[in-house]
Amino acid sequence: MTNVRGIKCWGAHTGVKSMKRDLAIIYSEVPASAAATFTQNEVVAEPIKVTRKHILDGLAQAIVINAGNANACTGQQGLDGANAMCKTLAEELGIDENLVLVASTGLIGEPFPTNEIVEGIRENAGKLSTKSNAGTFVANAILTTDTFSKEGFVEFDVDGYEVNMAGIAKGSGMIHPNMATMLAFVVTDVAIEPKLLKQTLHEVVEDTFNMITVDGDTSTNDMVAIMANGEAKNDILKSKKDAGYKAFRENLEEMLTHLSKLIVSDGEGSSKFIEYEVVHARNKETAKKLIRKISDSTLVKTAMFGRDPNWGRIICAAGNAGVPFDYTKADLYLGDEETLVKVLEKGTPQEYDRNYMKKLLRESHIHIKLDLHDGRFSSKGWGSDLTTDYVMFNSVYTT
Amino acid sequence: MTNVRGIKCWGAHTGVKSMKRDLAIIYSEVPASAAATFTQNEVVAEPIKVTRKHILDGLAQAIVINAGNANACTGQQGLDGANAMCKTLAEELGIDENLVLVASTGLIGEPFPTNEIVEGIRENAGKLSTKSNAGTFVANAILTTDTFSKEGFVEFDVDGYEVNMAGIAKGSGMIHPNMATMLAFVVTDVAIEPKLLKQTLHEVVEDTFNMITVDGDTSTNDMVAIMANGEAKNDILKSKKDAGYKAFRENLEEMLTHLSKLIVSDGEGSSKFIEYEVVHARNKETAKKLIRKISDSTLVKTAMFGRDPNWGRIICAAGNAGVPFDYTKADLYLGDEETLVKVLEKGTPQEYDRNYMKKLLRESHIHIKLDLHDGRFSSKGWGSDLTTDYVMFNSVYTT
Repeated sequence: MTNVRGIKCWGAHTGVKSMKRDLAIIYSEVPASAAATFTQNEVVAEPIKVTRKHILDGLAQAIVINAGNANACTGQQGLDGANAMCKTLAEELGIDENLVLVASTGLIGEPFPTNEIVEGIRENAGKLSTKSNAGTFVANAILTTDTFSKEGFVEFDVDGYEVNMAGIAKGSGMIHPNMATMLAFVVTDVAIEPKLLKQTLHEVVEDTFNMITVDGDTSTNDMVAIMANGEAKNDILKSKKDAGYKAFRENLEEMLTHLSKLIVSDGEGSSKFIEYEVVHARNKETAKKLIRKISDSTLVKTAMFGRDPNWGRIICAAGNAGVPFDYTKADLYLGDEETLVKVLEKGTPQEYDRNYMKKLLRESHIHIKLDLHDGRFSSKGWGSDLTTDYVMFNSVYTT
Repeated sequence: MTNVRGIKCWGAHTGVKSMKRDLAIIYSEVPASAAATFTQNEVVAEPIKVTRKHILDGLAQAIVINAGNANACTGQQGLDGANAMCKTLAEELGIDENLVLVASTGLIGEPFPTNEIVEGIRENAGKLSTKSNAGTFVANAILTTDTFSKEGFVEFDVDGYEVNMAGIAKGSGMIHPNMATMLAFVVTDVAIEPKLLKQTLHEVVEDTFNMITVDGDTSTNDMVAIMANGEAKNDILKSKKDAGYKAFRENLEEMLTHLSKLIVSDGEGSSKFIEYEVVHARNKETAKKLIRKISDSTLVKTAMFGRDPNWGRIICAAGNAGVPFDYTKADLYLGDEETLVKVLEKGTPQEYDRNYMKKLLRESHIHIKLDLHDGRFSSKGWGSDLTTDYVMFNSVYTT
């Protein structure tokens, strides 16, 4: 993260979590174009409410994140706490409170430990750094039940200018006692107008973070935010037609795909990473809805855990997606990362070597491909299997 | 079933299943008003296509059901098989082929064993009986992985006339290798016009069969059918305002609720029966959508398996239901069949005795009640928990 020009960060321990880092601060030396997407859950955590307001002008200069308490279902006390986090960091940095975004992850329905966190911000704002260990600290400080930190960095060319982009994310360890919050924060030194940044982020999130599934539930705290501070000094991107926009968009999509896959990979209760692909759909929405329904099906997920080429469950789930689905035109393929075997052609079951298939499905990376022969649109998605470990972890009594 | 006037039935073994009865025939001595609801899955089994056509005129006189092969994803061969079942039974009974309804349950994507089943129909049509063991046979012959047969009978008064109603159902054993088909067949001797019967069945199924969940998937074969042969000789029910209509409707709702609950109870991989209740919703659809989302949530289901009063998961699932949900107005109760404890009041966590709650959640019957304080509508639904056994059973390799 600190390889992006003008970006400083820090990750610290305030005491909300007993041992681990639980406070992350990301800072741009100059105000940045900023955009964010939020949870679609009707129940929204308090920091989301504050960040939604602060990002209305499309500008931000700092992001502060606490882990260990989700600040959800906490009412006025929690809202005051989220505002106090922004106010404190703004004071310490000498910037406007409206330029600070805030996010939380952890247990919901617990009183928000405002004092501890405000104290932590005061103690650590001065430690913001461009050293590489600061990047490691910040990536670790946003984790909850994650088993590894999730980072990405890319350097690319925007119309002749070198641009840097870095991202961090947290996901579901799948053993979280309340729910699985997904957070991702991206910083880049590209120069881009807020409106175009917002539109681009929303579109790219649709194809990346919104196409992964672990539990099928959206948390009260999910957030993806980006700051673009312009320190690359490229001609400011204003339109999708501008030279260099395509490079920016492609790299953002790659970054968010990378972070999304890392989140799916980090399921402690999961044994497999499954890539879902729907091709030749009549439109993109159809492809996406089919992927979401199949990847959320407990019957499909348990079959993959059991290395069972049970295509009936996949076709049945597809039929439940709420979109027109003509299985008599569809081909279905199953396999691992490298090899796909056709099990259904135009709705007709195909003969295949069951022992070979069993071997493929033993791999930790599974690929399921559905060819609708119905148009020119396609989509991809990623999910995990459903294991006995998942049920064990998620049924452990919280107290 | 044989206590309903003019109804004969039989359940037999044709050999499609190795040991158990796998062919059921229900027959009314006179043509009956008939209605059916079908799977919402886009992939529809062949018998569903035939029954849809045969029931267009609102009349039927016989139902034939085979178990062991779902006749789904079987193409023309399967369609021919479903038609052959109707044609054979019609010939044996000397009735019009259009008066025969057909249903199947079992494995999908396997060639349909038409010859065996047609042979079985020829051998058994003559055995149709009014003896009580025939009712037991027919209830058993439609089962697949179910662990017990599901029957119901009620006698009630329709405007001074004694009316009988009987029903049988099959559900999900939750270990089915392909999917969980739900079938239910009801016969009654009430006199009712086909149009009113159809409307009533659709409305009642919405509040009963459509409110239970096991896997969240709808099978390719789901069907609920009813025949009402008028042998009770009551004045034919033509309108919802007719004397006796209310009694018929209430008894049908009770019958389908009874059969629905039996299906949920029969989950080999489930350890709990959970009743969900949403009250004071602004409309019925909101209440239903909230129940469906909560009862389908793997996080809620694993929490119940773990006897974990983890209300955060319930509120989070409710927030994902796609309907307006203001948790700051909502009360949430958890408990067993007899006792409910308030854990959330107007969105604020309540103090409660955790040991007492833990004791309540050890019961096999759990009750979850959400009070929205937002209107005058309510709804109920029923579901199971998600257990390690469920995952084990459903991940067993099919071959």
